[in-house]
Amino acid sequence: MQRRLKVKLQYDGSAYHGWQIQRSGATIQGLLQEAIYRITGERVSVSGAGRTDAGVHAIEQVASFASSSGLDGVTLKRGLNAVLPRDVRVIDLHDTDGDFHPRYDAVKKRYVYLIANMEVVPVFMERYVWRIRSPLDGERMNVAAGFLRGSHDFSAFRGTGCGARNPVREVYRLEIEHRDEAAFLFARFSGNVMLFTIEADGFLRHMVRNIVGTLAEVGKGRIEPEEIRKILESRERRLAGPTAPAKGLFLDQVIYRL
Amino acid sequence: MQRRLKVKLQYDGSAYHGWQIQRSGATIQGLLQEAIYRITGERVSVSGAGRTDAGVHAIEQVASFASSSGLDGVTLKRGLNAVLPRDVRVIDLHDTDGDFHPRYDAVKKRYVYLIANMEVVPVFMERYVWRIRSPLDGERMNVAAGFLRGSHDFSAFRGTGCGARNPVREVYRLEIEHRDEAAFLFARFSGNVMLFTIEADGFLRHMVRNIVGTLAEVGKGRIEPEEIRKILESRERRLAGPTAPAKGLFLDQVIYRL
Repeated sequence: MQRRLKVKLQYDGSAYHGWQIQRSGATIQGLLQEAIYRITGERVSVSGAGRTDAGVHAIEQVASFASSSGLDGVTLKRGLNAVLPRDVRVIDLHDTDGDFHPRYDAVKKRYVYLIANMEVVPVFMERYVWRIRSPLDGERMNVAAGFLRGSHDFSAFRGTGCGARNPVREVYRLEIEHRDEAAFLFARFSGNVMLFTIEADGFLRHMVRNIVGTLAEVGKGRIEPEEIRKILESRERRLAGPTAPAKGLFLDQVIYRL
Repeated sequence: MQRRLKVKLQYDGSAYHGWQIQRSGATIQGLLQEAIYRITGERVSVSGAGRTDAGVHAIEQVASFASSSGLDGVTLKRGLNAVLPRDVRVIDLHDTDGDFHPRYDAVKKRYVYLIANMEVVPVFMERYVWRIRSPLDGERMNVAAGFLRGSHDFSAFRGTGCGARNPVREVYRLEIEHRDEAAFLFARFSGNVMLFTIEADGFLRHMVRNIVGTLAEVGKGRIEPEEIRKILESRERRLAGPTAPAKGLFLDQVIYRL
């Protein structure tokens, strides 16, 4: 009998070519499909909630696939983790509705982005932050972020090759927190860290990274906070700032209707 | 004019064959000597405070070398960091006494070791912990640790190939802290983490890893806490537990007389 499984995945994207299967290079989707084949013998097609780019991490990505396997969830989860590489983990797996789709059923997604405004980044953070040496003015960045909250046409923050028909997205939350230190397991490293949290009903291609890259320009004094409104209205990608590097970005949570 | 430089290094040892130059494979000492050559044009010999094994990390390793370079400390530090790989950083560099030796002048060293007593380890911690699935009894481990504090002949915890003439070391501190969650930058992951801190006037080869491996056996119930005293007295390596994996170990600090 066919059943549908919902999987929560966590990964360090450093070594991978993103979520989606490519002609060459290891991808998370590809690794998961291969792991499912090794454990169940089935060639399945896995859908994901968000197509994370190469180098982007996930605290919690959601995926789904149909299976005829009779294995219980605990065994399947253990089996997949036994064959997946160490930097990709199944953190949750259970049966779900037959018509569940991780992308279409998602009502919100939350991403997190880390900037380390430091001279030397602790090695244990290096894979997970965008290091910016020049001082960033957080107050200016906060003012600029205010113009991006709410429902807007985000064409100016849309990467080339974005397949979305409708460029309007609603940003429910866009916050920048400042920390004087970064926690790493048992150690604390002093230095200015900026944590961006952005939650929306959906994201255009590179939208988070283009927003962060543009806010960094505001922080450096190269773009005035009030210009953000004009940039949004222009719908012109070339007026916004550069795309922030992938490695500072984490898919944090995919939110479904209860 | 010759001067002597003291360097503090931080590294993620995952990709390296340890501190000391080997016939094959990249080492931290080798990378640093190569970086110094690229920046100053000098072929120097770098001494380190501790010969960390392959896969062992350092929050703060201390090294030293003689140089005729006229570059100031800030420029030299920046230059070295520009050519070193991202997982090896010079975090401090300054001129010191001509006769300073990072190993002989050290009065104490502190190591830290992490055990994740979890079913699934968050991917962002995986390179830095020893994952043990079976439950560990922390109280038993604490009792056992008590027998290791103080001055003892640590031959039973000494790895093969150890070159030290005197196997007596004084352990000033050996603590096991329990945490219900692990902090990683902005995220917290629930689960039982054990943090070992061990400070001594010096360490035999694999001494920390053999102590942790033996205490884990005590935690699993395979060795009685009181047996630790007998194991110490026996001076027999085969009576102690297995060597804990390198990846959970961090050289935390090298302490010098003021």
